[in-house]
Amino acid sequence: MVHDLQNTIALLSRTPAALDALLSDLPESWTHCNEGGDTWTVYDIVGHLIYADREDWLPRARKILQFGETQPFDPFDRLGHVQASQGKSLPRLLDEFACVRCECLDELRALNLQPNQLAMRGRHPALGAVTLSELLATWAAHDLTHLHQISRIMAYQYCAVVGPFKAYLGVLQCAGHSL
Amino acid sequence: MVHDLQNTIALLSRTPAALDALLSDLPESWTHCNEGGDTWTVYDIVGHLIYADREDWLPRARKILQFGETQPFDPFDRLGHVQASQGKSLPRLLDEFACVRCECLDELRALNLQPNQLAMRGRHPALGAVTLSELLATWAAHDLTHLHQISRIMAYQYCAVVGPFKAYLGVLQCAGHSL
Repeated sequence: MVHDLQNTIALLSRTPAALDALLSDLPESWTHCNEGGDTWTVYDIVGHLIYADREDWLPRARKILQFGETQPFDPFDRLGHVQASQGKSLPRLLDEFACVRCECLDELRALNLQPNQLAMRGRHPALGAVTLSELLATWAAHDLTHLHQISRIMAYQYCAVVGPFKAYLGVLQCAGHSL
Repeated sequence: MVHDLQNTIALLSRTPAALDALLSDLPESWTHCNEGGDTWTVYDIVGHLIYADREDWLPRARKILQFGETQPFDPFDRLGHVQASQGKSLPRLLDEFACVRCECLDELRALNLQPNQLAMRGRHPALGAVTLSELLATWAAHDLTHLHQISRIMAYQYCAVVGPFKAYLGVLQCAGHSL
């Protein structure tokens, strides 16, 4: 299995429109409810995706290109989106996600990364050595892990009203929760 | 938890556009690969969603309204989509899904279902008695279980290229597979 950066960019470029089509103007009982306790809502996740585009993926890519393994990545604040989302509607966050993603992909394409650069290593504060290629592939897989989580959070709102059909719905048996 | 049919319709009406935004023209390495063995591809799932709209949800709803529990539902062919999809591109299937879903929702709205009708029971061949309300709620949750599956199948294609980041990606630990 070889990482093809064009496939990664193809997916990254589609996520904002897919989330917009699914979520914009959907009733808040789908988008503003969670899976209990301090778990996230769909609204939280959209804020997190914006925050990660701003603070995580490209800043870390730049650090690898500039410093290699000599400087570890800054730790990522998993609750950084809370303040940044405050007072904003979900449609506004979806628009913001489309903008920031577009800007990030413009910058990524402009870097015109070559195989030797994609093989460069950086230092993750917890995981140790990771390559630029792995970081960028994870950006796309991170979109997918949150699409997976969004569908699970939404299905959770219907776990009682589906009655006996629950047995047939894999999403209601999912234990693939992100750390 | 009470089932609000308008929330179900709101979700059902958005799924085709969300899948189209995510999948149309995406490289086939995302959409035509599976999770190994005889598991499904994303392409298979879109065909299945079309087939279920044609053969499963509204036909069963009509049967409940007409016969109640006296006639069990026809069994659903989980591989019925294979022949129906043959020779069709993914963009064509996505268009077909948008059309059939639109027709189904027009019919559902025209039924103007009242609470006493939603409480009517039918007979599922394996699960026994189910209400019309449970059947229609499951239609929406079924969209979500397949969105969940789509994100998992796509992430699976990247399970090696993300390297050590795999530990942080819940979607790659998901065991919530539909029966």
